[in-house]
Amino acid sequence: MITNGWRLRNLLLLLVVALLTFDVTAQRSRPRLIVTGQDVGLMKTAVGKYPLFDAAFHGAQAKVDTALARPMDVPQPVDAGGYTHERHKQNYTEMQLAGILYAVTGDEKYARFVRDMLLRYATLYPTLKGHPMASGEATGRLFWQTLNETVWLVHVAQAYDCIHDWLARADREKIESGIFRPMAAFFTIDHAKEHDRIHNHGTWTVAAVGMLGFALDDKDLVEKALYGTKKDKTGGFLRQLDLLFSPDGYYTEGPYYTRYALMPFFLFAQAIENNLPDLKIFEYRDQILKKAFYACMQQTYTNGAFIPFNDALKEKSFLSPEIVLALDITYARYGADKGLLSIAHRQNAVMLSGAGLAVARDAGEAEEFVWKSMELRDGANGDEGGIGMLRSGGADDQSLLLMKYTAHGQSHGHYDKLAILYYDQGREILQDYGSARFINVEPKFGGRYLPETRAWAMQTIAHNTVTVDEQSHFQGKIATSEKYHGDRHFFSDSDPDFQIVSAKVNNTYKGVQMQRTVAMVKDPRISKPILIDVFRVASKDQHQYDLPFYYVGHLMATNVKYTAYDKMRLPLGEANGYQYLWKEAEGVASGPVKLMWLNGQRYYSITSAADSTTQVLFTRIGANDPNFNLRNEPAMMLRKKADTHVFATVLEPHGLFDPVVETSRDAVGVVQAVRVLASTEVATAIEITGKNSLRWVLLIANGTGSETARHEMTAAGVRYEWIGNYYLQK
Amino acid sequence: MITNGWRLRNLLLLLVVALLTFDVTAQRSRPRLIVTGQDVGLMKTAVGKYPLFDAAFHGAQAKVDTALARPMDVPQPVDAGGYTHERHKQNYTEMQLAGILYAVTGDEKYARFVRDMLLRYATLYPTLKGHPMASGEATGRLFWQTLNETVWLVHVAQAYDCIHDWLARADREKIESGIFRPMAAFFTIDHAKEHDRIHNHGTWTVAAVGMLGFALDDKDLVEKALYGTKKDKTGGFLRQLDLLFSPDGYYTEGPYYTRYALMPFFLFAQAIENNLPDLKIFEYRDQILKKAFYACMQQTYTNGAFIPFNDALKEKSFLSPEIVLALDITYARYGADKGLLSIAHRQNAVMLSGAGLAVARDAGEAEEFVWKSMELRDGANGDEGGIGMLRSGGADDQSLLLMKYTAHGQSHGHYDKLAILYYDQGREILQDYGSARFINVEPKFGGRYLPETRAWAMQTIAHNTVTVDEQSHFQGKIATSEKYHGDRHFFSDSDPDFQIVSAKVNNTYKGVQMQRTVAMVKDPRISKPILIDVFRVASKDQHQYDLPFYYVGHLMATNVKYTAYDKMRLPLGEANGYQYLWKEAEGVASGPVKLMWLNGQRYYSITSAADSTTQVLFTRIGANDPNFNLRNEPAMMLRKKADTHVFATVLEPHGLFDPVVETSRDAVGVVQAVRVLASTEVATAIEITGKNSLRWVLLIANGTGSETARHEMTAAGVRYEWIGNYYLQK
Repeated sequence: MITNGWRLRNLLLLLVVALLTFDVTAQRSRPRLIVTGQDVGLMKTAVGKYPLFDAAFHGAQAKVDTALARPMDVPQPVDAGGYTHERHKQNYTEMQLAGILYAVTGDEKYARFVRDMLLRYATLYPTLKGHPMASGEATGRLFWQTLNETVWLVHVAQAYDCIHDWLARADREKIESGIFRPMAAFFTIDHAKEHDRIHNHGTWTVAAVGMLGFALDDKDLVEKALYGTKKDKTGGFLRQLDLLFSPDGYYTEGPYYTRYALMPFFLFAQAIENNLPDLKIFEYRDQILKKAFYACMQQTYTNGAFIPFNDALKEKSFLSPEIVLALDITYARYGADKGLLSIAHRQNAVMLSGAGLAVARDAGEAEEFVWKSMELRDGANGDEGGIGMLRSGGADDQSLLLMKYTAHGQSHGHYDKLAILYYDQGREILQDYGSARFINVEPKFGGRYLPETRAWAMQTIAHNTVTVDEQSHFQGKIATSEKYHGDRHFFSDSDPDFQIVSAKVNNTYKGVQMQRTVAMVKDPRISKPILIDVFRVASKDQHQYDLPFYYVGHLMATNVKYTAYDKMRLPLGEANGYQYLWKEAEGVASGPVKLMWLNGQRYYSITSAADSTTQVLFTRIGANDPNFNLRNEPAMMLRKKADTHVFATVLEPHGLFDPVVETSRDAVGVVQAVRVLASTEVATAIEITGKNSLRWVLLIANGTGSETARHEMTAAGVRYEWIGNYYLQK
Repeated sequence: MITNGWRLRNLLLLLVVALLTFDVTAQRSRPRLIVTGQDVGLMKTAVGKYPLFDAAFHGAQAKVDTALARPMDVPQPVDAGGYTHERHKQNYTEMQLAGILYAVTGDEKYARFVRDMLLRYATLYPTLKGHPMASGEATGRLFWQTLNETVWLVHVAQAYDCIHDWLARADREKIESGIFRPMAAFFTIDHAKEHDRIHNHGTWTVAAVGMLGFALDDKDLVEKALYGTKKDKTGGFLRQLDLLFSPDGYYTEGPYYTRYALMPFFLFAQAIENNLPDLKIFEYRDQILKKAFYACMQQTYTNGAFIPFNDALKEKSFLSPEIVLALDITYARYGADKGLLSIAHRQNAVMLSGAGLAVARDAGEAEEFVWKSMELRDGANGDEGGIGMLRSGGADDQSLLLMKYTAHGQSHGHYDKLAILYYDQGREILQDYGSARFINVEPKFGGRYLPETRAWAMQTIAHNTVTVDEQSHFQGKIATSEKYHGDRHFFSDSDPDFQIVSAKVNNTYKGVQMQRTVAMVKDPRISKPILIDVFRVASKDQHQYDLPFYYVGHLMATNVKYTAYDKMRLPLGEANGYQYLWKEAEGVASGPVKLMWLNGQRYYSITSAADSTTQVLFTRIGANDPNFNLRNEPAMMLRKKADTHVFATVLEPHGLFDPVVETSRDAVGVVQAVRVLASTEVATAIEITGKNSLRWVLLIANGTGSETARHEMTAAGVRYEWIGNYYLQK
């Protein structure tokens, strides 16, 4: 039966291929890749009507007209980030725009520009060997790495498509034989491994190859793009759509690279839709591209920034051109969600395409985009942990807590299971360092990832999670880390006044189990939602547990009696990221540790259960950084030597600081103390007390998650019974 | 003759006083202080017409209606920044607004509110002795210092004026005898010295006393306010207008306190204008109040911030309520300058008054406010140095260089003659620390100036100027510093492509003469204006000269071969502010020192003439700061041991860093080297060389400033001749 099933499937596959062959070779009108003849018709009549579209159109004209007025340059590739690199990048952008401008305006100067430049590339390309600055496997010819070269082709295939019918046959032949055919062979043969890789570089490659296939009417290239170089679906676009996104649309590398990956996914999907509509690519896998886009957007904060866990540059936001593109196509393909239009207004840009025109045309109907609490599962099957996001408040002043319990996330993943990030007031309040990189800034290590990304930013101690015995999770070994993932314990956003996420991980260290639970709680007695953060580390053996809070802002007050190392400063440790931390002070508190800082117009207080054996360290990033590569930012770190231990912490935003009118109020929060009443394998009980007789007890089940299980525990002499994973007694 | 002249003047003075007497006692309509009957008439019909006015009106209603719904509280004064302090502040604000609301709406609930509260004050006040938290001389009763108490009266006099005619005679008598008369006596007798002081506290006192005088029809109080408690013009408002502002309107304490001082100046002037129009107070001293306002505005940067030399909080901007008030009155009194309306839009607020209404009514006619290059002289006669401001570019992207060569500036002055501050892109690029203070933030030293203001922020080394032998200017002694001031050498903003300021100071250190010259130069070969900074220190004896640059941003590159103290960090020095600096690295460069940093989307490069005996120190603020009071910010410091030495530096903004689209260009600037060709008592010659054969020689005359003098010097074998103070040979 199985054998028959496989045979049947192969037969059907052959049938589909045959149908594709028919479609691809049919002489349909051009352009046909991203912009179709129908789009062009609409765009012709749209100029002057919609400001966002006009800006795209006139912006493109200005850019290309400037290029037309300048001597054309298709230089010998020399550098990896200097003039020739940037020149070839600019060339592909200008060609792509010129192609569309030709289609829309019919002005042949644009077509001539694309033709003349392509003829130059067709002359240059055959003379090129490997790029002189190449390093590693994916050596390019025009660029130091194939990645840039595939991006070149994704753009240039569009330009070629636009002028194809206008070109003289001889020029077409020169261009195809000089650059397109050799480049296609370079990607699908020399770099077959890259092409078939399930990774964002692979996505760029298949998009480039497939779009060229459509442009050249070459079914072989299209099939390789869709199904891999062997055309057996072990690689290729569909396989990537299957494996790189979870069923929720979460992209395995995290939000920063999601942004980047969405561009080839959406561009190639648009080209497929225009050329192989029967494939229904936008419906594929239960509309996985729609899910991917929305998952990406939900991984931004209201200020537009991508939440920077894993390797990430904090400056990146949904203003990035990749998101403009993905948003426009999502809007056009998936039911014209008016909430996207408010984001388009902030982007203040649309694609020069039919999708961009649709957004520009409807811009006046914008509604607020709604950021929601949600869990996004990781893994192709959704069973490799995930991220939990709790949100409260509208876009003007939103609290956001994110906990990470995903799989590793490929080469850009960090060793920070159960790390948290927290935002409020449109700002970072508890930060993740992101990556150490000044992208494309030549004097900073050529603009590449700085060595401190690996040595510092990836290490566990750089994150708001527990480091055991000064070793990173999984000993900082990617091969080990990739075997495991965190696991959701429970997640609930059904009550907006009490949202909660809990996750576990048991393999970060041998013999150490970790469970972190964070609740976001609104209460009339407290002005803003507070976080209750309960991090349980369980082991039979004694360990040193370090839990830092990378608070953003200026320290205002603490109850810790500390020794300040303000006359001589030494690093906190020697390895695994500890060597990058200056020890600024250390001490202990009698009773709960309190730390209050100012950020923007609000105060933030941490109140953490502690006793006199909990050491409190005040650190600052920047030791062992002779090249001044790192940002010098502070943390407060709780250090406890124990076998099993619970760090129980409340983070409370409070008060107002308005220096313009010189107002400060409520510089002291409501929460006064946090205590761990009891913690067993069954459950943990936390007591929170504060002003006006506030007394809450939070009970968290520690066993297997269940919404119906009955739990009981005795804590501080009181017997508690509850049903489900948690209970907050107010 | 002189005697006769004096007699005549005294006679005239008596005549004026007699006329005042007549005016004051005449029964004119109320209200009459800040808002007049005519204003009220206009305001009645304006509601609903002008958004800014509506916001002021409805905002006031909301605030007072909230107060009406709450139990009234006039508490026994207890604290200096806690509840009772804030309560009394809120009470005066609410009374002032309620008074105006009564005048505009005629709704008696507002009048009753003011009356009832004043009756409570009239009961409380006679029972008060000195405030329990008082410290120093100016001990208040309702507040810990008289300053707050005069502010109370400035507001409450307005409220009383509004309800005066409505009040029953018995209530008037109770209120006047219970609080106003005793408070007036408290200010004019007990605190006569404060009243007569030429200082912003004195301004508040005379404004309070004078406004009460108008409200009570008391000519004695009005005269004391105008001419001092002895009525002999040795104190009082007119004397303050004569002495606290220079002929250019520069206020002696600097911009941060100008902002604060403008409020009583403008309020009392408005009350004088409404009650003693013949005094023509707004014309007084050639329209000194207009000059004061515009001088204050010109001491902001385009982002709204006051330039923070001397004690200053950097968060303060022209959004402050004091500037709303001064702007509105300036607009109404001085010819309706439409450029002010664009500032009013950014303030998004107007006074609830006739002047505020005028601004709100005209808001649609807003024009851009123009920031200009200018020198503002310090000193009552304009002969005590000043500040020079060079600007280039519009409000969207303006370069601003400020050099300070003023007098000391009273108790909030810093020891930083010839210091510079530099802005670009709407951001600080070379910063002044400002003061160390978290205003009104109770946990930070009660919200008062932190001890680090005096110990660090005031010291010379905290500024972008030369410190000699690790001692502050004038040995950090205010009594000495107040004796001296810098002197303008020359200033020219006539050529927008070559603006220049030069100043000298000869008394900061015994036997050391300092001259600093900064030019802002635009040139087609350079994308943005560059600064050429030539600091000449001359002495017969060997000294150590330290010139720091407190750059804002992240260090990208330097050519200095340095030793990084990244494994152990020690303070740079032991006293005079040096103890607050960590020494992060030190080294030397072979040839000109280069330092490049990134701030926002632009790179900034310092290129400074140096040789192998110039030590380069990399520092960071934060040593010896056990309470985490300071911001941990970097500097690059040039250190030279010499008798006479010239620090010649170019600061060049260049390139673009756009992380959203991952673009970096021109991370290396055009300027490559700066050399001192020659420096004598006659002149200094600086050579600047750069890409594309750029070679400039800047010649600066060092003798007495003259625009017509002929100079000559031989430098590097070339003879130069020029007329005037400077010459740039391109």
